[in-house]
Amino acid sequence: AAMAGGGWARAVRGLLLDVSGVLYDSGADGGVPIGGSAEAVRRIKASGLKLQLCTNETQATRENFVRKLRAMGFDISVAEVTAPAPAACRLLKERGLRPHLLVHDDLVPEFAEIDKTNPNCVVLGDAAENFTYANLNEAFRLLIGMDKPVLISLGKGRYYKETDGLKLDVGAYMKALEYACDVQAEVVGKPAKRFFESALAELGVPPEQAIMIGDDIVNDVGGAQQCGMRALQVRTGKYRPSDENHPEVKPDAYVNNLAEAVDIILQHL
Amino acid sequence: AAMAGGGWARAVRGLLLDVSGVLYDSGADGGVPIGGSAEAVRRIKASGLKLQLCTNETQATRENFVRKLRAMGFDISVAEVTAPAPAACRLLKERGLRPHLLVHDDLVPEFAEIDKTNPNCVVLGDAAENFTYANLNEAFRLLIGMDKPVLISLGKGRYYKETDGLKLDVGAYMKALEYACDVQAEVVGKPAKRFFESALAELGVPPEQAIMIGDDIVNDVGGAQQCGMRALQVRTGKYRPSDENHPEVKPDAYVNNLAEAVDIILQHL
Repeated sequence: AAMAGGGWARAVRGLLLDVSGVLYDSGADGGVPIGGSAEAVRRIKASGLKLQLCTNETQATRENFVRKLRAMGFDISVAEVTAPAPAACRLLKERGLRPHLLVHDDLVPEFAEIDKTNPNCVVLGDAAENFTYANLNEAFRLLIGMDKPVLISLGKGRYYKETDGLKLDVGAYMKALEYACDVQAEVVGKPAKRFFESALAELGVPPEQAIMIGDDIVNDVGGAQQCGMRALQVRTGKYRPSDENHPEVKPDAYVNNLAEAVDIILQHL
Repeated sequence: AAMAGGGWARAVRGLLLDVSGVLYDSGADGGVPIGGSAEAVRRIKASGLKLQLCTNETQATRENFVRKLRAMGFDISVAEVTAPAPAACRLLKERGLRPHLLVHDDLVPEFAEIDKTNPNCVVLGDAAENFTYANLNEAFRLLIGMDKPVLISLGKGRYYKETDGLKLDVGAYMKALEYACDVQAEVVGKPAKRFFESALAELGVPPEQAIMIGDDIVNDVGGAQQCGMRALQVRTGKYRPSDENHPEVKPDAYVNNLAEAVDIILQHL
């Protein structure tokens, strides 16, 4: 079905790719590449199309994340990755915010330059094993003790797939703290419009000439479409058949995987 | 101010009392009675007023909960306690539901008679230290794997106060699972109307002759008023001054503590 149409594949100059669930399936063992995806990245680059990874990954610094991707065979550099933590650091500096971090240990170095004394906000990432009862209570107490609680969430995904099964993502814990403190979090990451706009600026392509490819119907596909991009959902990663009946978001196309998307796009160049 | 009026204290035949934050402040050490509250319970009983405790307590069986209250000097029997777990067991049996329990270890015996093989729903209580990353992921995976996820939450409180500080309550974790699974939980406990109606039935007094006394502006005060009861907020437990500006709920009166409420009510008998 995806091969038949392809109208969506015309006039493309750049691609934004989600990473987990598109390039590889993450897991405690570091993850496993999805078949054909490393080759697909090489073909995109050889074609002259621009490429930027647009990820809500917050379990590692960009440097370590890229190191992992390169070890899996992906030809990617740090500058080709748009991720929430650097965007959050810009926001914290702009607004003079001093964060308490509830994030993965491996993300902490991204905030090395940020003053974290006497916190006046909480930054929440996918903290994984750091999502303990004690740590959640600590973040909650800091927020509820503020005159006007400021909660910054690095993404708002519901869940993601690792090699050993589905896991709750940062969005679930964001909702817990939002409810307990009666506040609304500010999301830095997909699907925030400002985050996609940063990624497009780094891609150097206007939204109408860019395609987002992701496995998350709401945060990848819906978010990108809100910014005027076309968006594809891959049937890998956290994709579930029921996504194809989503009440609000309809991708421009479904593709079985990144390799198939790239086949079609390159045929239309 | 509470003493001055007292119109709210007329024509009373029975009292529903919240427990944590009204009778005692809970904590890792078992808790500390709030000054004058044990004497207030004795005075209520001596006056001939009916009394029922209406609690969202899910960290112990009713038997152990009553044992703890009695050790703190409260003249209370098991039949005088309306709590979520027994109500949930009735609901599970009515609907043929087999729960996966994410609850406090000490609550598990309440579900001894319930078939828990091959679960087709999740029952969520205030699991405290059992709210681990692994346990939350396990409950999530069971729910997301169901054709139509059924999540039953024993209360939906935001947070409560223990002697060592505020803690996230079951409602926060309920919101996390609701969001991740895109479902709405069924709440068994305050502020559900059906739960207050059970407590009133056990009290044996119609709502217009009953007063609810609690420290939770939404779950105690708002919930009871929705059932046609009068409701007081005590300035103990999790009470915060900002509660007095709540946009939706206005108690019939504020009192400094249970003892003051009982003083006023007995004066009007």
